Amino acid sequence: MKQKKVTFADIAAYTGFSKTTISRYFNDPDSLTLENQQKIADALTELDYKENKVGRILASGKTEFVGLIIPNLYMHFYSEMLSQILDTYGTYGYKFLVFAGNEKADVERKYIEELLAYNIEGMIILSGTVPSRELASYGVPVVGIEREDQFISSVNTDNYMGGVQAASLLRKSGCDIIIHVNADMPDSQPASGRIRGFVDTCKEYHLPYELILTHLGNTFEENRERISSLTDQLEQKYPGKRKGIFMPNDTHANVLLNILIQRYGSLPDTYQIIGFDNSPISREAVIPISTVGQQISVIANEAMKLLSEQMEERKKRRPAPQTGPVHRIIPPVLIRRETTA
Amino acid sequence: MKQKKVTFADIAAYTGFSKTTISRYFNDPDSLTLENQQKIADALTELDYKENKVGRILASGKTEFVGLIIPNLYMHFYSEMLSQILDTYGTYGYKFLVFAGNEKADVERKYIEELLAYNIEGMIILSGTVPSRELASYGVPVVGIEREDQFISSVNTDNYMGGVQAASLLRKSGCDIIIHVNADMPDSQPASGRIRGFVDTCKEYHLPYELILTHLGNTFEENRERISSLTDQLEQKYPGKRKGIFMPNDTHANVLLNILIQRYGSLPDTYQIIGFDNSPISREAVIPISTVGQQISVIANEAMKLLSEQMEERKKRRPAPQTGPVHRIIPPVLIRRETTA
Repeated sequence: MKQKKVTFADIAAYTGFSKTTISRYFNDPDSLTLENQQKIADALTELDYKENKVGRILASGKTEFVGLIIPNLYMHFYSEMLSQILDTYGTYGYKFLVFAGNEKADVERKYIEELLAYNIEGMIILSGTVPSRELASYGVPVVGIEREDQFISSVNTDNYMGGVQAASLLRKSGCDIIIHVNADMPDSQPASGRIRGFVDTCKEYHLPYELILTHLGNTFEENRERISSLTDQLEQKYPGKRKGIFMPNDTHANVLLNILIQRYGSLPDTYQIIGFDNSPISREAVIPISTVGQQISVIANEAMKLLSEQMEERKKRRPAPQTGPVHRIIPPVLIRRETTA
Repeated sequence: MKQKKVTFADIAAYTGFSKTTISRYFNDPDSLTLENQQKIADALTELDYKENKVGRILASGKTEFVGLIIPNLYMHFYSEMLSQILDTYGTYGYKFLVFAGNEKADVERKYIEELLAYNIEGMIILSGTVPSRELASYGVPVVGIEREDQFISSVNTDNYMGGVQAASLLRKSGCDIIIHVNADMPDSQPASGRIRGFVDTCKEYHLPYELILTHLGNTFEENRERISSLTDQLEQKYPGKRKGIFMPNDTHANVLLNILIQRYGSLPDTYQIIGFDNSPISREAVIPISTVGQQISVIANEAMKLLSEQMEERKKRRPAPQTGPVHRIIPPVLIRRETTA
């Protein structure tokens, strides 16, 4: 996909100048004599140098820049997804302009507008702030991950299957009541599939279940407070019962686990916990947490593959007419660790 | 520092076109009639539009892009620092091209060379892969954070004071032996100050101490294995003694804490633990971890302030001659939580 690139070292070797001099040619050309500037310019032509990106922007309008918008870096899933997406540089060569909106919708929208004015070639977006209809109207390829995606391409986990897996595991673990905690969200959000998969499985097997749809907050302090009072409620409502709890993600599962250990000294055998994501915190927790794993590395690579196909198409002299959005679904992987029987 | 910007919405309101049409003008102008393109172009002139960045790159060679190179996203300190630096967009308007090298030195160097060829305006670098002498030779402002910084500007915590604070806290906590675990590193690395501060304090107060200089690995699995065998060694060497352990960072302090709880069911009173950084994991741990806090938000903002001053200077018609590197030192803050007496 990408040609072998000529490096500063190659140009230095070819011209006999130092790498410092080559760098100065690009960044501070006036510090070189006109004669030396000309020598390097000639060498670049000989070497068919690909690196003068600003020159390429002029010629083609293409920047090899991709915007990457995440909601925050607090949730371990986003941090890990960011890490995996950045790592695709070695394969695809695209560089990422990264932004974390942290719920400031106006700043995020302004950032996206700035990126578009810079002629970024495409965008990967995990944040749900801007509706997909608006994103699609920007006229650059956009791939969404785990967000509303009606008008844009996307790569998502099979969330419904994830909900089925979580409920099925808790069913086999001998719980008296199984509970799913999640945010109340519209059907257009992929994660809502987890709720449907969970409920359908409970109904199919006639399992006693409860759905607790509530917003757990955006910071650790808010999470802690709300999950703590949630625990109080469950204790009151189901004293002595074996409770199987399917948390919305591993970050929140870990908060619940730590609250229980802080209260009882260890994880009581009346609690089983399963998270979602297989983000790093699930294996780093004091008791490794069972989880419905999103294949984060697979999703990152599929998203970049899909985006780069669309970006490369646009660079052709006669691009194929745009098709509708493409939605790729990646299966979840159930990972049994120590918080379930 | 930055002028009020004209948004797509402003242009839409001025011209009577939709925001979608305005976006198309920038990204897919052929989809508009020539007449409409002209109307929008005229409006941009009237509104003194600042957003056509590619046009600005042509005119000035300036991109408002800053390269941000971190070693990895596994260590919670880097993830939090990244979050805080990205958040300066609201204040300074610079956008960040982010890369995590993950110990692949050749890929990281290539990435930096690409950024330079794109005329980024400056760089913030936490990774230690490329020596500061080489970074300084690139001819763009560079600010280092917690890395070797002889030839570049930097913002660092007062690491020596941090080592003093950690040893002093453990001294008052009635330990029989106090131990500092860290990587063996050259004096040129700011974090080496922690070791000197720790040792000087132990010597000053005639405290029994041990320095364990060893590399704990780059992944959670490596950390776990090495810290686990370290714990075996300490158990053998100091059975029944009250051990105060100063870990190199909160991520590793948390691994040690979890290993001890997994072995003994709770944190034995023969162990006291203090970390470094005040990264999120220190307060999210199952027992909140005492730590020598780096003021991460202050460091992020100081680094961006220093870098933007240098970048703005370069944009002037007659920039002041470059001075030598500037080194800013931020005091650490001792945070006593539940892993020390």
